[in-house]
Amino acid sequence: MISYLLQCIDCGRHSIPSETEYLCPRCSSRQEPMQPLAGILRCVYEYDAAAAEMTVESLAHADTGLGRWLPILPIAEVGSLPNLIVGPTPLRSVPRLRAELKLDDLWIKDDTVQPTASFKDRASAMAVAVARELGANAIATASTGNAATALAGQAAAAGLDCYIIVPSKAPPAKLAQIATFGATLLPIDGTYDEAFELSIEACRRFGWYNRNTAYNPFTIEGKKTAALEIWEQLERSAPDWVVIPTGDGVIAAGIEKGFADLKAMGLISRVPRLALIQAEGCSPIVKAYLSGSEVIVPELHPATIADSISVGVPRAGRWALQALQSTQGVALSVTDEEILQAIALTGRTTGVFVEPAAATAVAGLAKLALAETIRADERVVVLVTGSGLKDVAAAQRIAPIPKPIEPTLAAIEKRVQACS
Amino acid sequence: MISYLLQCIDCGRHSIPSETEYLCPRCSSRQEPMQPLAGILRCVYEYDAAAAEMTVESLAHADTGLGRWLPILPIAEVGSLPNLIVGPTPLRSVPRLRAELKLDDLWIKDDTVQPTASFKDRASAMAVAVARELGANAIATASTGNAATALAGQAAAAGLDCYIIVPSKAPPAKLAQIATFGATLLPIDGTYDEAFELSIEACRRFGWYNRNTAYNPFTIEGKKTAALEIWEQLERSAPDWVVIPTGDGVIAAGIEKGFADLKAMGLISRVPRLALIQAEGCSPIVKAYLSGSEVIVPELHPATIADSISVGVPRAGRWALQALQSTQGVALSVTDEEILQAIALTGRTTGVFVEPAAATAVAGLAKLALAETIRADERVVVLVTGSGLKDVAAAQRIAPIPKPIEPTLAAIEKRVQACS
Repeated sequence: MISYLLQCIDCGRHSIPSETEYLCPRCSSRQEPMQPLAGILRCVYEYDAAAAEMTVESLAHADTGLGRWLPILPIAEVGSLPNLIVGPTPLRSVPRLRAELKLDDLWIKDDTVQPTASFKDRASAMAVAVARELGANAIATASTGNAATALAGQAAAAGLDCYIIVPSKAPPAKLAQIATFGATLLPIDGTYDEAFELSIEACRRFGWYNRNTAYNPFTIEGKKTAALEIWEQLERSAPDWVVIPTGDGVIAAGIEKGFADLKAMGLISRVPRLALIQAEGCSPIVKAYLSGSEVIVPELHPATIADSISVGVPRAGRWALQALQSTQGVALSVTDEEILQAIALTGRTTGVFVEPAAATAVAGLAKLALAETIRADERVVVLVTGSGLKDVAAAQRIAPIPKPIEPTLAAIEKRVQACS
Repeated sequence: MISYLLQCIDCGRHSIPSETEYLCPRCSSRQEPMQPLAGILRCVYEYDAAAAEMTVESLAHADTGLGRWLPILPIAEVGSLPNLIVGPTPLRSVPRLRAELKLDDLWIKDDTVQPTASFKDRASAMAVAVARELGANAIATASTGNAATALAGQAAAAGLDCYIIVPSKAPPAKLAQIATFGATLLPIDGTYDEAFELSIEACRRFGWYNRNTAYNPFTIEGKKTAALEIWEQLERSAPDWVVIPTGDGVIAAGIEKGFADLKAMGLISRVPRLALIQAEGCSPIVKAYLSGSEVIVPELHPATIADSISVGVPRAGRWALQALQSTQGVALSVTDEEILQAIALTGRTTGVFVEPAAATAVAGLAKLALAETIRADERVVVLVTGSGLKDVAAAQRIAPIPKPIEPTLAAIEKRVQACS
């Protein structure tokens, strides 16, 4: 039995799931063009009952992935989730990175090892599960790349038809994954923001279930599971900070939601402070935060190597700003050069290979540590959201592949001496 | 306390670890050129004592990865393993692939989600742990690519210097990973077989600890953990078959060893039958098996898209042939075209994106199912050993990325109709 309500984050009005498909009808009717979505819905559960159901025993079966959190998920059956099990991903202890950043209690939440190699498996698995319970045969999304590969993979496992609208400039590895999963891949000559608008029209026209991030409220319910796992992995406690690479603002929304749910169940006393990191070439949320404004000015010409967070119109921007305020969070941007340096730093100190968007969070973390905004003794979790294998070209800019040598010991000796 | 002996698989003689570094001194002195390694060593534990220590409780902490199996590992301390925790990887239920192959009890052991995205993290983590216990500062390996990326990642997490000798023709994604992890990357104009010989000389010359697969017996102890996890995930039982992509033969050795250890502890009654699958363009083990010979004729010009198993001189070839005999196993080869088809089949039915070597196992499985060598009701586990993100070019040969379209609903409609 599903027992939750949907609450509009703008007007606060509650609705029941069968009445509303994606957004608050009242607020979304006043949507302004090129602005964050109006009327995003927040799932509200019966938290006392959920807390009673979520025992150490019920959470023990990690091999069921997201299904362990059923009392606070928007689905009726664990079996609705695809067989391509999502999470729990490792919370890595990273002593060498701790030493470099002078952060004694730093952890990496490593979603590079998700089934399709990004954080987006969380949202996509949840959207597919809801689609199945609604009886949909086809599901679609706009994406910068990772959400699409995740949806294509989860839909393949579930046997749903899948339609993907992405900028054609997404890294080839992401497009190759989507094609291999058998989805109908529709690369457009345009931006992610155009893909987003177009996918809403296409879903209406063709009757596809829409997984667009933030537009579909259940994407946030999927993403929140990272917060739940962090809580579990830190022996049922919340960290002081969570550092989040930020494009649309939906991961920020998900992390806030996950910890808020835990607080509503009486399992933690405080939601961690959020640090939202954007790329300098596309940082509308950071700019709004720094100006103290509630109005987000769209970035008409996003320009960053961090393709996954190259989002000019952050659809969950309002929720992200609310979360910054309610958690006493901070937001800042980093340059592409800092992002590349963070790819190398993360690789050589932890053995985790990250894509530019994920490195963005590490780059921001380094700045926050240096400024002592985050103190050495605070407990910090940084979300590492996508594998470096998704964008090898970016890594090669900071760690180029050396020229081949002859297969002789003399050649090896010469090269080794040159490197040392 | 480490308590094991090393037994030569050729002469059967036992030695203690402090006496022997890599191979049986007697047998390896009679090594013939371009032949499988003579004198590979097999770790032998005190199985009764180990069985008593390995309880349900001791195995419960999956977040410690390989360390849970300490009573049957060649290390003294769990803490010697790098922080880049390896496994347990999912044993995936794959209903849609089961239906396609008419195998009702088929499972995928998915090592694409290892920290560096291949099965080789198992062997590399173990070799790094042993190197640390021996007090080594530097570790090196020859590799077709994945073993090297795994070693570079595990060494980065542990803070060991790392030297990598690989064919320069390895897929760029693998080389980029290695470079990002800060290893000294030595790409040679030559084959894996040349890299193998050269790395042994280089380790002697420079005092590096050698992780070469099979040459270093602890690589097999790392790889065997896949068998231990399968046993655990199948509710403490062995499957009827394990299907293994095969190059050097060391994964086959590892799987045989893992189940043999479980049998020695009285935890299973029978080692599963092994099905070893090679690519047709490089199949010396299959040829020896089919001819009933114990002599393996090297493949001087390996030619296959499955780079990870493009190994002309299978170093653990003798162990692989022994394992085929002792388990009543089978060996067969598949064409590159069949490998590409298996990449697509796996992707569209399971959402798991595999590299060519991993697809080789699925392609071979499909043939064995069709021939009813593996019956529909037998329990089969297929090892999926590396992520498709490691070799995107291969995937594009079977699932090409479509041309971009205009960002309009009309263009989408036209493309969707063309695809359906």
